Order: sequence, then C-alpha cells, then structure tokens
Amino acid sequence: MDNRPIGVFDSGLGGLTSVRKLAKLLPGEDILYFGDTARTPYGSRSRDTILRYGMQDIEFLLSKGVKAILCACNTVSATLPASYTNQLPVPFVGVVEAAAAAAARTSANGRIGVIATAATVKSGSYQAAIRPLRPDAQLTIQACPLFVPVIENGYLDRRDPITVLLAREYLAPVRASGVDTLILGCTHYPLIAGTIADEMGPEVTLVDSGAQGALVLRRLLEARDLLCARSKGGNLSFYVSDSGENFAEIGALFLGRDLSGGIHPYTLLE
Amino acid sequence: MDNRPIGVFDSGLGGLTSVRKLAKLLPGEDILYFGDTARTPYGSRSRDTILRYGMQDIEFLLSKGVKAILCACNTVSATLPASYTNQLPVPFVGVVEAAAAAAARTSANGRIGVIATAATVKSGSYQAAIRPLRPDAQLTIQACPLFVPVIENGYLDRRDPITVLLAREYLAPVRASGVDTLILGCTHYPLIAGTIADEMGPEVTLVDSGAQGALVLRRLLEARDLLCARSKGGNLSFYVSDSGENFAEIGALFLGRDLSGGIHPYTLLE
Repeated sequence: MDNRPIGVFDSGLGGLTSVRKLAKLLPGEDILYFGDTARTPYGSRSRDTILRYGMQDIEFLLSKGVKAILCACNTVSATLPASYTNQLPVPFVGVVEAAAAAAARTSANGRIGVIATAATVKSGSYQAAIRPLRPDAQLTIQACPLFVPVIENGYLDRRDPITVLLAREYLAPVRASGVDTLILGCTHYPLIAGTIADEMGPEVTLVDSGAQGALVLRRLLEARDLLCARSKGGNLSFYVSDSGENFAEIGALFLGRDLSGGIHPYTLLE
Repeated sequence: MDNRPIGVFDSGLGGLTSVRKLAKLLPGEDILYFGDTARTPYGSRSRDTILRYGMQDIEFLLSKGVKAILCACNTVSATLPASYTNQLPVPFVGVVEAAAAAAARTSANGRIGVIATAATVKSGSYQAAIRPLRPDAQLTIQACPLFVPVIENGYLDRRDPITVLLAREYLAPVRASGVDTLILGCTHYPLIAGTIADEMGPEVTLVDSGAQGALVLRRLLEARDLLCARSKGGNLSFYVSDSGENFAEIGALFLGRDLSGGIHPYTLLE
C-alpha cells in the first residue's frame, strides 16, 4: 500500500488522454501530471534534445515525490534507453512498450501499423519492442507530423476537411499494406480516432498507446502492492512549464472534464 | 565603419527569409543567425515565456559580439517592450515596427490586414505600431496558427490542397474587410506568398515583415556609420539550439541556398 501520487508526463497536452484512462481505472489514486508546454512539441526534435527534455521531466516528477512514473509521451518513451529507466528509484512505464505488447497480442495476421511523430518513427523503438513478441510481424510505420498541430488547434470533427485530407495522405500506405491492427503511437491521436477509423475501415483495430500505458501501470502497481488505500476521490493536479491559460482550455478536451482548478505553472530547470 | 557581424534571430527557421534579404542588400556583411530550434514555435506560448526566450536569444547574440540585432521573429518583436530594447548595448530592429511603417506608407484606402501567430495577434503590437502613423487606419488582424507547421512540413506548392484550404479559412474575413495591404506578420509566411496572393487577389499588396526589417536595419547601419568595409563576400554562420540536421534541410528552402557548411549546434542556457 502506498498513498503517494502517480506521476504522468508528456511534452504537452497529449498525455491527458492517458490520465483520463488512469483516473477511470484507479479512481482513488492521486495523479500528478507534468506537461512541458513551454517546449512542446518534442516529436520534431533531435534525439539529444529529446533525451535532455525527457530526463528533466522525470527529475521534476521525482522531486514531487511520486511513487511511479507513466511516460505518456511516445516520443520520449521511444528515445529513453532502458539502461536509464531501469535505474530510476521508482517503477517506470513507457507507452511504447505497453502499446507494442497490446498490438502483438491483438493482431491476427501479424501485419501491424504504427502512426507516430517523426522522432518516434526515426527511433525504431516500435520495431524493437514488437519483434521479440511477434517475430513474424510485418510492420508499417508512418510519421504524421501535422496531426499534433491540427489536433492542438481543435480540428477534431470527424469530417473536418483538413483532418480528413491529412489522414488520407498519411494512412493510404498503411491501409495498402493490409494491417489488421494500428497503433496510435502518439497520445494526441485518440482525439481524431473517428477520422482515423473512417480511413482504415472497420476491420482494423486501433490501439490507444496512452490507454495501454495506464493498463500496464495498474497491473504493475497491483503486483508490487503500491496501490493507495482509497478506492475513489483521488486528486488530479497539473503542472505546466508555460502559462496554465491555454492548457486549461484545450486540456479539457483531452481530459474530458474541466481542469482549471488544479493547474500550477512552473518554470522548468532554466 | 564596423566589421563586427550583424546578429539575426528567430524562434526557428522563419528568420532565414530575413537573412536572405539582408545578404542581398548588404553582401559584404558577416551575418550571425540564431534559431531556437529546440523550443520553436513561440507563437502559441504565453507572454512570459516569450519574453524569457527572446531575452535569452538576445543575450546569446550579444555574447557573440554582434554590432546590431535584427529580431526576425514577429512573436518576440511584438512582445519585447521598448523599455527593454532601447537599453540594449547595440541597435535593435524589430520586424513588427518595420512592417507596420511600410504598410502605413503603402495603403491607399487605410484598410490594412495583418496575419500572424496567436501570440502576435494577442499582443496588440501591430495596432499600437500603425495607429500613430495612420490614425485613420482600419486594421483586420487574423491569427493563422497552422501556417507555421504546414510550412515547416513542406506544404509549399502554390496549389497544395491543405495550404489552400487553410488559406481560404484564415483569409476569408481579411479579404471581406476590403484591405488593400496585407502584412505577412510572421517570417515563415513568404514561403506561401503565392497561395496567399491567390486568395487575396491581385489588387492587394503583400508586405514581407522580414524583408522590411532588413531594409530598416540597412538604413540604420548607414545612418550610424556601422556598415562594414567590404562590399561583398560576407560570411553567414548559423547557430541552432537543436541539432543542425533538420535545420540544414528545411533551412535551405527559406534561405534559397545550401547552408549545411556553417551550422553550429548550441545548447542554450540550460
């Protein structure tokens, strides 16, 4: 039993889709979220910069006394080496490993698609995570660099012409490869899951990486007896490196509820 | 006469359109460019964060011994107060003041449009800069938050369906207001000037804020006898806070020539 908060972080807003799932799975847990909104997005940056930012995000959560960390940013999860995350003083779950395991279990024909940021694609992490679980798997991996800005600017309607045009461009080669499972390898993408599903067709299963990360974290807390004593009434608090103003407005879309009460602007390590 | 380099900075790549113009106007000058590619874009961030980043960018250029600074970022130019820029140890030119003056001179009917990032719009700086010069002016100012990511991802074809769709959405209210002059209030926008011109029609004059900044800087260097001794063969060097790799590739589009030889990655103040 451990009543300390769970730490969740992302480059910006996307990880809130993970928090939403986690709060539903474990309604008694306190969750402390950090979004690096002064430096988002990470997905177009170099490996060295992503490593530096990711480690700073983790140091921040550790300084707040969290009992476990969910890295709800696919870009960071794809970039941090296991040699680093294994030596952290608290358990660490990355969304890439979680989503890769779910897709490997789910796919019937072994053809798995991944859509993600440019940095996640470049890292090769999804390939590395899926291969040991499904050596027969054929992966089709596609960078979708404009999905994040389009989502953060609110083009979320399932039939929005710009979102549909982009989805068509990005997903055509993925659909053509005959995948039966598609990993949404960025925690922003669940907000346009309808548009993505329309392009991929009803026979393709979409894997939400943020939700899978939350499921893996719950199992880990159970296995190590780290769940809190409460079964409801957990507190959510949000730390952001930019002002809280924009975060409250768009964040509510991701979280599915108002969050303006619990936001703490915070200048990160500069 | 002063042979020290001119310093130019931007949140990322956009300011290279200014460098292009400056190198053409003053081919003998050494130009030292800083692009904060590890933290771009600035245009969606809060005022406090933009102030902090902008001042750090200026400190970096000053540490390199520049003789004058061109702020080729409309977002920073719109946010830094004159009380700060006036006390800098070298002359400072911001693109907002330069573009505002050009538009005030150019417009016949006094109806002036401005397209810019969300932060530039929110700052009210274009209104403040134009009013004293043209008290009769009627301004229509429009945020275009997706233009920067669309441009940085290479959707530059004049008839690209995504760029055209966005331009139509953003520019419809500007065109409807009857402007005869439109300020491109972000140094990225010249790369899609063709698409913007198609939407606005041939009777509307487009004002390139980065080019106007370069013109104002030349006049200032002449007036204060700060031009260098050479009339050609100036050296361009580029400092970036993220890796130089992506910068070289997309930067060449902005600058109109290869720049891979002169890029120095630099970790900024962290």
